[in-house]
Amino acid sequence: MKAAVIGLGAMGMGAAQSLLRAGIETTGYDIVEEVLDQFAAEGGGRADAAAAAVKGADVVLVFLLNAQQVRSVLFGSRDGAVAAADLGTVFVLNATMGPAEAEALADDLLAAGMQVIDAPVSGGREKAAAGDLTLIASGADAAFDRALPVLEAISSRIIRLGETPGSAARVKMINQLLAGVHTAAMAEAMVLAARDGLDLKVVHDVVSESTGQSRMFESRGQQVAEGAYTPHSSVDIVRKDLGLVAAMAGDLDLPLLRHALALFEDAAAGGLGRQADACIARLLAERAGVELPEKG
Amino acid sequence: MKAAVIGLGAMGMGAAQSLLRAGIETTGYDIVEEVLDQFAAEGGGRADAAAAAVKGADVVLVFLLNAQQVRSVLFGSRDGAVAAADLGTVFVLNATMGPAEAEALADDLLAAGMQVIDAPVSGGREKAAAGDLTLIASGADAAFDRALPVLEAISSRIIRLGETPGSAARVKMINQLLAGVHTAAMAEAMVLAARDGLDLKVVHDVVSESTGQSRMFESRGQQVAEGAYTPHSSVDIVRKDLGLVAAMAGDLDLPLLRHALALFEDAAAGGLGRQADACIARLLAERAGVELPEKG
Repeated sequence: MKAAVIGLGAMGMGAAQSLLRAGIETTGYDIVEEVLDQFAAEGGGRADAAAAAVKGADVVLVFLLNAQQVRSVLFGSRDGAVAAADLGTVFVLNATMGPAEAEALADDLLAAGMQVIDAPVSGGREKAAAGDLTLIASGADAAFDRALPVLEAISSRIIRLGETPGSAARVKMINQLLAGVHTAAMAEAMVLAARDGLDLKVVHDVVSESTGQSRMFESRGQQVAEGAYTPHSSVDIVRKDLGLVAAMAGDLDLPLLRHALALFEDAAAGGLGRQADACIARLLAERAGVELPEKG
Repeated sequence: MKAAVIGLGAMGMGAAQSLLRAGIETTGYDIVEEVLDQFAAEGGGRADAAAAAVKGADVVLVFLLNAQQVRSVLFGSRDGAVAAADLGTVFVLNATMGPAEAEALADDLLAAGMQVIDAPVSGGREKAAAGDLTLIASGADAAFDRALPVLEAISSRIIRLGETPGSAARVKMINQLLAGVHTAAMAEAMVLAARDGLDLKVVHDVVSESTGQSRMFESRGQQVAEGAYTPHSSVDIVRKDLGLVAAMAGDLDLPLLRHALALFEDAAAGGLGRQADACIARLLAERAGVELPEKG
């Protein structure tokens, strides 16, 4: 069993390391030299091109940022990874992307004689490093059978969503809708609480144990309460994800989604794109003339 | 130690039963004869008027629906419970109400020689019955010292928020903002998922374990996925709560709050007021021509 990982960012690197720990021969590729060096130092294979990475691989994990990157690396004239792969290689699409893009990529991979699993991940950097990702995955049984050792090495939970690539991307979009709206709701709640002079740490503690709890309020609300904005995810990433959800929704009017997206677009336009997503609380606070806690 | 409970609805009855279990002599009052009969059958004292219930009580729990009811029962010409209470009786305000109303009631109780604790509860019917409510409570130390056996009998967690009644109501409002927005976000997410043909039970399962999780998505999302709408809370109650939050926010513009409130107002105007709060998913689905699961 040979695996390749294209894209050694926070998530891809963790997955690649998990494969090495599981004893699976793994070659990595990234455009950043330093991460290739790091992976090679840890015992991984080092490829200087995507096509070289996938050569002879049974399973290829694609951990890129978006569908455009994936298409370019798989089918572009420069990288052309698919052209270099053996027929029947299983391509696992781990990036968060719109379902239309996931379906189009899957169609093109199948047409090129490859197998494909649409498998967006959740869990963040630490879980990736620990091999504890959650995979939502759709694809043919044969592809699953072949890729299973790889999928099990990087994840602690695999939720299968049928044989049609694209279903997993759709469920992931539903999750991103909620995560983004909850982050925006956290910002509204914390700015209101701050304006009224409440102790945000107490608010965070109480709400996290009550009916207003959300995973995002627990995590991002704590950042706002402490004034310490750790970029687990950025304004740009949430803006991108909510934009994909809005594109998927099409003419279905979802006002909370629309306003959460507008908030992240405003934040990005205001230069906060690379900041932690919780920084939209700062944007709301500034607009309202409210002071939030700042660490130090 | 003698206690009184005014309002034996789902929450008040559970609290009153918890007091009996703790060996605290407790008199109940409600306008509904049947619940008085039930409480008397369980060993509770039965009062046919609020004034009779509070006579000789050390601590009075007020479990009414809103501030208007509380003011009427405590200070109205018909009920006049405060006029019948001993000086120094501790009134515990358990209803969810706007902070301005909580502060005004507290001021009037203090002016009448009473003690007061602002103590909105969370936890629902089952936790009330089990004595496992969470109390967010603000009030003077002396009032807490006297009321402590009663508060401990009805709750498994008491979060003290300083000596000024009204602080607890403000924190409760922050929680209600989030709970209401999360319920509306659940509706948007489930209607989008249903339109795209996803299995809502799978969506519920995946999101509940991922970054889109919220307490409301877990609870209300399950109702939508199963097509079984159990009225833990109603459209009217959420509409009322979000209206109180909007009043508290005043000129602070919070678009998600505003749109969630509009959705619950539309649902109430459409005759869904007494339905389960999760029914706003049905409203969105109907508007969009999307079918949601229906049980049976």
